[in-house]
Amino acid sequence: MTGPAVVALGGGHGLAASLEALKLVCDDITAVVTVADNGGSSGRLRDEFDVLPPGDLRMALTALCDDTEWGHTWRDVLQHRFRGDGQLGGHALGNLLITALWDLHHDPVTGLDLVGRLLNARGRVLPMAAVPLEITARVRGLDPLDADALSTLRGQVAIATTKGTVLSIALEPADPPAAPATVAAVREADWVILGPGSWFTSVMPHLMVPALRDALHDTTAKRLLTLNLEHSGETAGFTAARQLESLVDHAPRMRLDAVLADPSAVDDEAGLRTVAARLGAELVLAPVAQRGAPGHHDSLRLAAAYRDLFG
Amino acid sequence: MTGPAVVALGGGHGLAASLEALKLVCDDITAVVTVADNGGSSGRLRDEFDVLPPGDLRMALTALCDDTEWGHTWRDVLQHRFRGDGQLGGHALGNLLITALWDLHHDPVTGLDLVGRLLNARGRVLPMAAVPLEITARVRGLDPLDADALSTLRGQVAIATTKGTVLSIALEPADPPAAPATVAAVREADWVILGPGSWFTSVMPHLMVPALRDALHDTTAKRLLTLNLEHSGETAGFTAARQLESLVDHAPRMRLDAVLADPSAVDDEAGLRTVAARLGAELVLAPVAQRGAPGHHDSLRLAAAYRDLFG
Repeated sequence: MTGPAVVALGGGHGLAASLEALKLVCDDITAVVTVADNGGSSGRLRDEFDVLPPGDLRMALTALCDDTEWGHTWRDVLQHRFRGDGQLGGHALGNLLITALWDLHHDPVTGLDLVGRLLNARGRVLPMAAVPLEITARVRGLDPLDADALSTLRGQVAIATTKGTVLSIALEPADPPAAPATVAAVREADWVILGPGSWFTSVMPHLMVPALRDALHDTTAKRLLTLNLEHSGETAGFTAARQLESLVDHAPRMRLDAVLADPSAVDDEAGLRTVAARLGAELVLAPVAQRGAPGHHDSLRLAAAYRDLFG
Repeated sequence: MTGPAVVALGGGHGLAASLEALKLVCDDITAVVTVADNGGSSGRLRDEFDVLPPGDLRMALTALCDDTEWGHTWRDVLQHRFRGDGQLGGHALGNLLITALWDLHHDPVTGLDLVGRLLNARGRVLPMAAVPLEITARVRGLDPLDADALSTLRGQVAIATTKGTVLSIALEPADPPAAPATVAAVREADWVILGPGSWFTSVMPHLMVPALRDALHDTTAKRLLTLNLEHSGETAGFTAARQLESLVDHAPRMRLDAVLADPSAVDDEAGLRTVAARLGAELVLAPVAQRGAPGHHDSLRLAAAYRDLFG
């Protein structure tokens, strides 16, 4: 296998699905992962050690594991969560391993590369920024007395589960340092892929890191956005077109070459095609949903769609 | 390298020193490790998950690591302790990894073998028993009103640090199941080595597990006891001869082929030789102490002594 050099940007389960598809069709994969999670095991580790939240990085690494007995064994170990509600209960072993490696090696990329070697990972996993971030969001609809009033929410957990309508997000700090390896990977890629994934808390934050946004603007790579299959929580009620429009709002200079959507997730194809065209992108409709698992991308169908796009 | 099949029984730093020596002179090494620790990271994991205490098993595995960049990298990761006094503070990463593997694979030996593969370990590490144990000790001298009164202490930590004089130890449960692989290794060895290590809390417990004691009696292997260099805590004030006599008290049927001691740790050579002879053993005096680190065996000198004994 050869294929193009691909950088996939996102976080959580959406990015993992994209990586599982990519490892079927290309050899040179770099995952760039959000570092703004403040919940669960990652949130506890941030609180205790002031480290990058390791959870989404761990999930991307395990998605790229070598498909051998060795790779699957260590994938399962890294994904294992301690049971109960004691001091360790709920922590994923891989989060603890990554945190220990960061303490020993200081540079976060060195530690992530070591976990990649353990898994014989079929690509590299890098953080979106070199410091832990907080997301803030401007949200409408949280004031019971005034439906138009705007509120500010702070933290990935609060934003991802809000009952209000997210209008925009920002990062704290607003101009975080990017890992040099991350910027270099984007600049040198043949393709960069945004999404799928939680739109405001996993995908859009990449466009809010100035050095990374500049690299995404300047790269000679082709740019693909894979749209989500469903909208709930932070994007409840969104259409595919509105998801795209919010990208324009946050990163007006951003251009795309292609927007990939499952036909089942598109209610107004003409409208979506118009918004895509404003970004310079062709709309590509392909069946990429997983049967029997609403909202989840199917790794084989997504792989087929990526392969066809890569030409 | 070939050399004999060697089983080394002990726990903690003493066993680790023995293993670091053994891996220089033979290929077929099995470490059998006490599972009665109730302090520190291991004690907290016992409390939270009712597992075997992993700490001494981890230390034995890291002592056997492959002496390559890969082996040393993962050794250092497994030995790394989280800092601070939060939920993770004080835990060794390797203890957490072993605990996760036990939760995933149930059989403790499978999990330990996987860590061995990670380290490319130069031997195998097995637990003394298949269930976590408590040590109890009969101790004299703890009653300020009656110097001859006997007390019972419970738990490795209390016994190892007692100000009294330990007369005898016992295990709870008294007849724990032994891991079949452990018994088989002892029966099939060419040499079995007891010690060095904390005498009542790391070494003697092996002789209190009936199935393991029987295997040590019945094996056709030669039996070596490596005496400690210093006596403090649980054996404060002991002479080398008294250390040997307490072995006779606890396991009267036990026979030895050789007793290895550093000349600096022997104040009454004739007396020690007499006690050794009652056990069937030759006393072998060899310089095995580490210069500048009182109480610690030197791995190269100990390796030389082992090689000479193995003939």
